Amino acid sequence: MKTWREECAVIGIWNHEEASRLAYLGLFAMQHRGQESAGVVSLHENHHIHHKGLGLVGDVFSEPDLIRLKGAAAVGHARYSTTGQNLLTNAQPITAQLLNGPLAVAHNGNLINAHELREKLQKEGSIFQGTNDTEVLMHLLSRHPSNDLIKALQDSVVQLEGAFSFVVMSHDRLVAIRDPYGFRPLVLGKKKNAAGEWAYVLASETCAFDLIGAQFVREIEPGEIFWVDQQGEHQLMMDRKVSRKARCIFEHVYFARPDSVVFGHSVYESRKSFGRYLAKENKVEADIVVPVPDSGVPAAIGYSLESGIPFELGIIRNHYVGRTFIQPQQSIRSFGVKIKLNPQSAVLQGKRVIVIDDSLVRGTTSNKIIGLIRAAGAKEVHMRIAAPPTINPCYYGVDTPHKSQLIASHQSVEEIRKFIDADSLTYLSLEGLFAAMKAKSDSFCAACFDGNYPTPLHGLDRISP
Amino acid sequence: MKTWREECAVIGIWNHEEASRLAYLGLFAMQHRGQESAGVVSLHENHHIHHKGLGLVGDVFSEPDLIRLKGAAAVGHARYSTTGQNLLTNAQPITAQLLNGPLAVAHNGNLINAHELREKLQKEGSIFQGTNDTEVLMHLLSRHPSNDLIKALQDSVVQLEGAFSFVVMSHDRLVAIRDPYGFRPLVLGKKKNAAGEWAYVLASETCAFDLIGAQFVREIEPGEIFWVDQQGEHQLMMDRKVSRKARCIFEHVYFARPDSVVFGHSVYESRKSFGRYLAKENKVEADIVVPVPDSGVPAAIGYSLESGIPFELGIIRNHYVGRTFIQPQQSIRSFGVKIKLNPQSAVLQGKRVIVIDDSLVRGTTSNKIIGLIRAAGAKEVHMRIAAPPTINPCYYGVDTPHKSQLIASHQSVEEIRKFIDADSLTYLSLEGLFAAMKAKSDSFCAACFDGNYPTPLHGLDRISP
Amino acid sequence: MKTWREECAVIGIWNHEEASRLAYLGLFAMQHRGQESAGVVSLHENHHIHHKGLGLVGDVFSEPDLIRLKGAAAVGHARYSTTGQNLLTNAQPITAQLLNGPLAVAHNGNLINAHELREKLQKEGSIFQGTNDTEVLMHLLSRHPSNDLIKALQDSVVQLEGAFSFVVMSHDRLVAIRDPYGFRPLVLGKKKNAAGEWAYVLASETCAFDLIGAQFVREIEPGEIFWVDQQGEHQLMMDRKVSRKARCIFEHVYFARPDSVVFGHSVYESRKSFGRYLAKENKVEADIVVPVPDSGVPAAIGYSLESGIPFELGIIRNHYVGRTFIQPQQSIRSFGVKIKLNPQSAVLQGKRVIVIDDSLVRGTTSNKIIGLIRAAGAKEVHMRIAAPPTINPCYYGVDTPHKSQLIASHQSVEEIRKFIDADSLTYLSLEGLFAAMKAKSDSFCAACFDGNYPTPLHGLDRISP
Amino acid sequence: MKTWREECAVIGIWNHEEASRLAYLGLFAMQHRGQESAGVVSLHENHHIHHKGLGLVGDVFSEPDLIRLKGAAAVGHARYSTTGQNLLTNAQPITAQLLNGPLAVAHNGNLINAHELREKLQKEGSIFQGTNDTEVLMHLLSRHPSNDLIKALQDSVVQLEGAFSFVVMSHDRLVAIRDPYGFRPLVLGKKKNAAGEWAYVLASETCAFDLIGAQFVREIEPGEIFWVDQQGEHQLMMDRKVSRKARCIFEHVYFARPDSVVFGHSVYESRKSFGRYLAKENKVEADIVVPVPDSGVPAAIGYSLESGIPFELGIIRNHYVGRTFIQPQQSIRSFGVKIKLNPQSAVLQGKRVIVIDDSLVRGTTSNKIIGLIRAAGAKEVHMRIAAPPTINPCYYGVDTPHKSQLIASHQSVEEIRKFIDADSLTYLSLEGLFAAMKAKSDSFCAACFDGNYPTPLHGLDRISP
Repeated sequence: MKTWREECAVIGIWNHEEASRLAYLGLFAMQHRGQESAGVVSLHENHHIHHKGLGLVGDVFSEPDLIRLKGAAAVGHARYSTTGQNLLTNAQPITAQLLNGPLAVAHNGNLINAHELREKLQKEGSIFQGTNDTEVLMHLLSRHPSNDLIKALQDSVVQLEGAFSFVVMSHDRLVAIRDPYGFRPLVLGKKKNAAGEWAYVLASETCAFDLIGAQFVREIEPGEIFWVDQQGEHQLMMDRKVSRKARCIFEHVYFARPDSVVFGHSVYESRKSFGRYLAKENKVEADIVVPVPDSGVPAAIGYSLESGIPFELGIIRNHYVGRTFIQPQQSIRSFGVKIKLNPQSAVLQGKRVIVIDDSLVRGTTSNKIIGLIRAAGAKEVHMRIAAPPTINPCYYGVDTPHKSQLIASHQSVEEIRKFIDADSLTYLSLEGLFAAMKAKSDSFCAACFDGNYPTPLHGLDRISP
Repeated sequence: MKTWREECAVIGIWNHEEASRLAYLGLFAMQHRGQESAGVVSLHENHHIHHKGLGLVGDVFSEPDLIRLKGAAAVGHARYSTTGQNLLTNAQPITAQLLNGPLAVAHNGNLINAHELREKLQKEGSIFQGTNDTEVLMHLLSRHPSNDLIKALQDSVVQLEGAFSFVVMSHDRLVAIRDPYGFRPLVLGKKKNAAGEWAYVLASETCAFDLIGAQFVREIEPGEIFWVDQQGEHQLMMDRKVSRKARCIFEHVYFARPDSVVFGHSVYESRKSFGRYLAKENKVEADIVVPVPDSGVPAAIGYSLESGIPFELGIIRNHYVGRTFIQPQQSIRSFGVKIKLNPQSAVLQGKRVIVIDDSLVRGTTSNKIIGLIRAAGAKEVHMRIAAPPTINPCYYGVDTPHKSQLIASHQSVEEIRKFIDADSLTYLSLEGLFAAMKAKSDSFCAACFDGNYPTPLHGLDRISP
Repeated sequence: MKTWREECAVIGIWNHEEASRLAYLGLFAMQHRGQESAGVVSLHENHHIHHKGLGLVGDVFSEPDLIRLKGAAAVGHARYSTTGQNLLTNAQPITAQLLNGPLAVAHNGNLINAHELREKLQKEGSIFQGTNDTEVLMHLLSRHPSNDLIKALQDSVVQLEGAFSFVVMSHDRLVAIRDPYGFRPLVLGKKKNAAGEWAYVLASETCAFDLIGAQFVREIEPGEIFWVDQQGEHQLMMDRKVSRKARCIFEHVYFARPDSVVFGHSVYESRKSFGRYLAKENKVEADIVVPVPDSGVPAAIGYSLESGIPFELGIIRNHYVGRTFIQPQQSIRSFGVKIKLNPQSAVLQGKRVIVIDDSLVRGTTSNKIIGLIRAAGAKEVHMRIAAPPTINPCYYGVDTPHKSQLIASHQSVEEIRKFIDADSLTYLSLEGLFAAMKAKSDSFCAACFDGNYPTPLHGLDRISP
Repeated sequence: MKTWREECAVIGIWNHEEASRLAYLGLFAMQHRGQESAGVVSLHENHHIHHKGLGLVGDVFSEPDLIRLKGAAAVGHARYSTTGQNLLTNAQPITAQLLNGPLAVAHNGNLINAHELREKLQKEGSIFQGTNDTEVLMHLLSRHPSNDLIKALQDSVVQLEGAFSFVVMSHDRLVAIRDPYGFRPLVLGKKKNAAGEWAYVLASETCAFDLIGAQFVREIEPGEIFWVDQQGEHQLMMDRKVSRKARCIFEHVYFARPDSVVFGHSVYESRKSFGRYLAKENKVEADIVVPVPDSGVPAAIGYSLESGIPFELGIIRNHYVGRTFIQPQQSIRSFGVKIKLNPQSAVLQGKRVIVIDDSLVRGTTSNKIIGLIRAAGAKEVHMRIAAPPTINPCYYGVDTPHKSQLIASHQSVEEIRKFIDADSLTYLSLEGLFAAMKAKSDSFCAACFDGNYPTPLHGLDRISP
């Protein structure tokens, strides 16, 4: 029920006879990271075969598509389409025919100097297909004088500023690159193929490994360039130093699947821990702790454990929504929320209720949920947000609303409480957030909460998002 | 992850300008009761307009379909198609042109003397379209000499043996009928229409009222014939006495949505209570209580509350499955379970785990889940089933497997424990089940657990299901 | 470009391992007779399997559908759906489960006493699914006391008044029946099956035989009941005498495919002959003879041969129209005609043109075509209709417009000429029509031209069509 | 029934409020030139909006697509997809974001030095999306130092060798370019918009003008660069001289719609004239002249007029084929031909038949047609081809089979006659072809017949097609 939208999931498979099918399954497991377009490119006899489409992974690919995507290597991508009129053009992986052969790039992140690089490249005659910042890398590579892809990548990625976890496939290798800040996750796994050899798997989240039966090996390190080819695996570090790491804390707050291990931490445990700290930081007398499902559940469990107040599924979620749901013509009150969430009177009637949500963006949904909870008979509603107030937009790959739409950027907690009509409202403190993660604040990016952007913004803060 | 399949959801709307749209939304809220076909018939200027299709409610109806389904009254149905080659023929509501005008019938339940009645009617020249037992009612009505639909219904339904909650729509009224045992639920609600008058809503479950913003009024009583027409509402009781009530306990165990109130009890609270009694009846030392999501969650909450052992979402469910999911060609171990359920190592590693499920049918899925839990590192796995062993098939509208496939019908609890590879296995006792519901055993049907069928079986036990 | 719409095509296959596929192909060849719904029922191990859908034959059936339609016998139907809100309900073949087993009926024609029979049956308790008159036969059969289908058919069809060519399939035989007037065509063919035995084929038109490689054997005679079963073929005549035959002359004028042989006459040769007589009956000086394609082509060839005036394809037809063609928002003059027909200036410029069409209904299309021909530069436009003026509706299975919309029913030829803006207009005379066919007027029904209906109308002329 | 496949249709619209809709309709009228993919790009507020898809024009575009394609200018394309695995990538118009804004290019023709130019551009860092030769122009433009599109086009197109009719749209103008040989057609028309101003229309064939109600103005001249912008229309000639013109004679033989005027000649009249010359060059005694429909009809009319032998539609074409036609599993003799063409016995029985076809490629289809004609009872079959023997592949945009598959390239006329089993076979002579067109042989390209290629082949003759 949030409007946070992650930019993407990436996946790469090397040396497996069902490469495109594993890529498809991996994207399926990471569907939560991008639900508006999906694509897979496979490598077959030195050629690339591709298939992209708008929609959920399960709808974009049919059995004949996967049969057509022959080959033992593949790269895949799922994303939120940017708004605009030519959505499919921006779908990934982006592909091109370079002199040395075909190249496919899947990107999770956002390049903050893409605009400058793009203008420079266009002045030199480069053609851009879409408005996607990922194309910049493709052009830097195509202009590189060397025939050696790794050399070209080394020289190209140091020019990129911002967040990037790339999976790149050429006619003879699969490459993973993560920016030196380490904004976005990228993990390496392996799995036996039919011949009993190791296949390599690269993915945004470990939940993809769980589904396809791969073992987790390690994170791709911030600043690392890793690749596999017929000779085996290789690794080197980018020639670019940065003063700190900046793993995205929001992966733990909201994006990642709870059953993933991200940046070395269980997401589920992080969230439970946020709930525990939330309970520690502010006590309130209440009868039950109720999560906004599904994202608020782990924090509510933690809150309940810490506070001793019973956990209850007071709001039931309907998962049968589907894509083409037809709205009623006559307005049913709060219909948009009700189609997914039903606060049940049998649990809430006459109760003092603590409601746990993972974050709060505009406040309009919270307002509706609290309205429905009160209509179901709750006596008191205490809203608890398992993260600090979101006051700044993200420039590193999270599709946040404009700052003006972030209610916490211009209203006090008390004003927000009134707006959402809660009896009380508290957020997790910034200190609590880091303490819960047992992490130092300079190893994570929490700019959305504290405004401490790890990189220069190249003027982006003056325009968007 | 179960193979219990409910026969249907029914809905009826009277006196609302958006009748077919409300019927559609109500079916949508009750999608869990029947996911293979759906249909709505509306009443417009004394004619019926119908639309049926195979698939989920959200896929069967498009905006133009709902626009075509004009009128201020409607009846709808969602069901599991029976197996067979002509699925659409058996989709409901069934419709016909009688001399007095059009008639549409939606049925939740199963008529155990349908075969005998059908043969008798066919001998007298009646034509049957499908293999659906509901057609029998239509023929009894058409052969009734009276022009009065209610009179004809009174005389017809007393001939029917078994479970039936009917919603019937003619050219001038909407009727609800529930068999005298009260096997299947049927509730009455109301909602203001655009003119400020009361519209009537009939539905299988109260969750449909929540979504469309209707108020719950009361249950349709066992043996009641209720109808609304232009003169208002009317009610009478069938001329048929039965020795006991027989509300289906399985609605509380598995079928109904947790946020529904069924037979006067909150389903969510019933399930929590089953979990509590399960914990009371048998104690085991363990570190965490983990539900099989989503159906096992309420019982696990109850179990945790009663036992004091922490509740943990140790198995994460992926809700993005979709209808046309493409299987991997090469077998991934337990793929069919993994695509939906991912036991997470971060929670389970090194733990003694109590796993709560609502029921256990063949045992094969439990075996796979326990295997995945062990692979995730659990030290001990104690399976707890929040219901008694299922040993008998249902003849009253639940599509159970054949008795030979119900593992508990021919294996002891210890044998089942070995089969599913659990360290221990216990079920809720029959006494615990009724105690948890605070109900007398002669007000519910628990034949699937105790073999105490409320009606004669007319030979059905010798053939199927 | 006409609005005449035939009611249907029927087909039956017996004793062929690809029965449903041959039925599909046969319907495909007869697609011109019914383009809005199609259905096939196959017979497999004493059960019927059915598939029906809205749309063209090629769109209603997919490969999996045909695989599902197992069995060595099949009956199929293609039709124009009647207008109305429940189109699929009226699609054929209609099917039912009778006491003796399944029955499927495909019907080409129209029963003029259906309404009376229907009311009588309903009073006795019969249930009707749709508004289709064919259901009447099904009910008469189901009420017949005999177990013998042929006996039941004999007794039932004598009660039917009007036009009927039936193909009926039970669990053990395939039956063909043609009304004693012989209004609609029905032909018998045969083809070797994989085992080298004869398979039987019944179809509305011989063009179906050509496609599936069957040999024409003979017409089913007016009044004949023909059937095949495991014992072989059988035949008897209905116990019903009529004073004349009444084969539909409009099959030759417009409906049938030109490459079919209907009622023993080549349709193509009939139409050419209509064109010859049209030229004989009225001479006009002109430069070229131009057909309205495709239906006017044979008559134009005949006209050209008789008159010596050169035949020219002055109007080119675009066959790529498709079903979902999107109209321009801004009106393009006569767009509806132009999307299909393009009169070409290179041929028409400065010419005196004779335009040949097969018939003329409302005159609006002719008016537009003549406008486009004049815009293309024609000096004179002489319209010639290869049939007499259509002044009466058909009650025997042709979906004609209401009499008030038949321009010739209330305007003189001169008035029509003015309305369509032709320099001259003539029709073929009634005498010419029969002479061209070398047929006696009492062997054909030409009621649409002469008002001489072969049967009583049971009041239909007072209400519709 | 031929395997000649034209590469494309192009269309451009300028200054019309329904630009994308008119582009769609124009492509629809030119559907015969490319049936496997279609695309339209519109210009709205300096941005391009695009939509492409695989399939027929009528299936690629839906109403919402056209609504999304806002703007008063548009460029469109329909094509045969080249074989390969990434068909959509090669669909046109191709689009790009250049520094000066968006650019879209639609191309009819084939560049024979594309491979050399492509390799050179890739060495300089250009990225190619597909294998389409049209991308070369896009890259030449993007590398041009000038901001002036027309200047860049002038300098770029002189580097291109081969056949090209381009329609190019930028953010502020619509450009048409035709190679100096004039291989492919390109015509200019105009039409009033809603404001009463002239809109410009560019199209491959005049039949597009007829449908959308535009007036033909003139051909775009070989070597001409024509453009419209807010200032009005402009024109200049490419700085490239060639020794002769080379209009494609095959447009008149087969490709173009008969109702188009191509290179100043009516296609229908050309074909009739080919038929007349065919009759003049070789006389044979026969009873009827029968065209292979639809492409052989005009030549057969001409043949009949010249020879005095009657024209008969002895073969009837079924136009309901559709895309997903399901084949019979068991082979029906010559099914592939029969599904489209039905030679009718009623016309052919006992006759000496002259069969007219437009061209003959492999001979296999002719062999089957003659077989069916003989099976229908013809006494003699004399095949007449309204063009010379096709002995060479085309390198200018016609997708011909490989030379080895052109039967006339390696067999004598007598050998072909035997292969197709005709009683006699003659072709139109090369002299007859030009005489029929009243054209000089150096103004047309007839390389497919005479091997006289107007340009150097850059080695293409050694590899393909």
